[in-house]
Amino acid sequence: MSPRLAHQLAFIHEVDKLKYVLRKTCLFNSNRRENDAEHSWHLCLMVLVLQEYSPEPIDTLKVLKMLLIHDLVEIDAGDTFLYDPARQGQAHADAEEAAAQRIFGLLPHDQRDEFYALWLEFETADNANTRFARAIDRMEPLFQNLTNGGGTWKEHEVPLSKVFERVKGIAVGTPELWDYFLEELPRALASGQIEAGAEPQS
Amino acid sequence: MSPRLAHQLAFIHEVDKLKYVLRKTCLFNSNRRENDAEHSWHLCLMVLVLQEYSPEPIDTLKVLKMLLIHDLVEIDAGDTFLYDPARQGQAHADAEEAAAQRIFGLLPHDQRDEFYALWLEFETADNANTRFARAIDRMEPLFQNLTNGGGTWKEHEVPLSKVFERVKGIAVGTPELWDYFLEELPRALASGQIEAGAEPQS
Repeated sequence: MSPRLAHQLAFIHEVDKLKYVLRKTCLFNSNRRENDAEHSWHLCLMVLVLQEYSPEPIDTLKVLKMLLIHDLVEIDAGDTFLYDPARQGQAHADAEEAAAQRIFGLLPHDQRDEFYALWLEFETADNANTRFARAIDRMEPLFQNLTNGGGTWKEHEVPLSKVFERVKGIAVGTPELWDYFLEELPRALASGQIEAGAEPQS
Repeated sequence: MSPRLAHQLAFIHEVDKLKYVLRKTCLFNSNRRENDAEHSWHLCLMVLVLQEYSPEPIDTLKVLKMLLIHDLVEIDAGDTFLYDPARQGQAHADAEEAAAQRIFGLLPHDQRDEFYALWLEFETADNANTRFARAIDRMEPLFQNLTNGGGTWKEHEVPLSKVFERVKGIAVGTPELWDYFLEELPRALASGQIEAGAEPQS
């Protein structure tokens, strides 16, 4: 076996651990928590079906690559719950950076550099591909909570004002799909799946 | 919400059920069975890392699309264990065809037709994309069994002769990676992870 293949297979073995990283949200109509590998697969399928709702053309292959690898850092750094302030500080960013170095570092250098660049672009860049990819990533837990009587909104007492603040990237990445949530979220409020909270800051 | 979006969201909800379809094989170094959604994700990542081992250029986006949807029919038709003869007859093929009609039929017609064609191509066509995609699909359980003391080979008493017969598509889709298994499988035999069985038919 060539050293190159040995590195590639080590990476393929290592990423299996993503299947053990549990998210806070549960599957649709379910109390079974989703893992990051299933989540990543579902996002890719959402891209295939919903890409027409990007206001600008996207590079589908690049968006799929980003979503396939975007959560790998959580193997070391743990799941990032959208509404947990402890997951938004510098310490957590440093842990994710170290995880990216270690996990992508298992690959041959050319692939390490490509994957690291894709991950960093997903995390930090502002372009049509990243806007759409991040919108899709934000959308899945909304769908899930809407089928689970409020799901993590209820469980972690997240009010609607906070949800609006944290998922506003959907409006940027895909305004047409955001309109769907602007219809659905008030229904969730009316039916008691979520509390209102403070008025959203405009 | 437009009728088109309603169809698309119905599909996105429905495919969540793939996360409940358990395969016979377990995760790497594990006794936890893998589900079809995790499996599909892992295959996509393997394509990104291993595509250079296709003897002909592949259309990466098309191969990813095929692998993202290739197991959706198992939501209705159940997991297809590679070594179960009952899963290889006409009745099972009919069940998968009916599942494809129902599940892809949730989508708007243009997307239904595209996904159905991709699924059928993966299942039946012989070209560089399908050969590589099917090789990747065959490869993951070999990796898993090799880390699990024989895994499903031991559990279901599958001899090496049968494995060689059922995974020969790897040799066709990616001869260079098949060479890796030609080194590893005899080691599994020598260490008692698998029995020899009858001499393979040439």
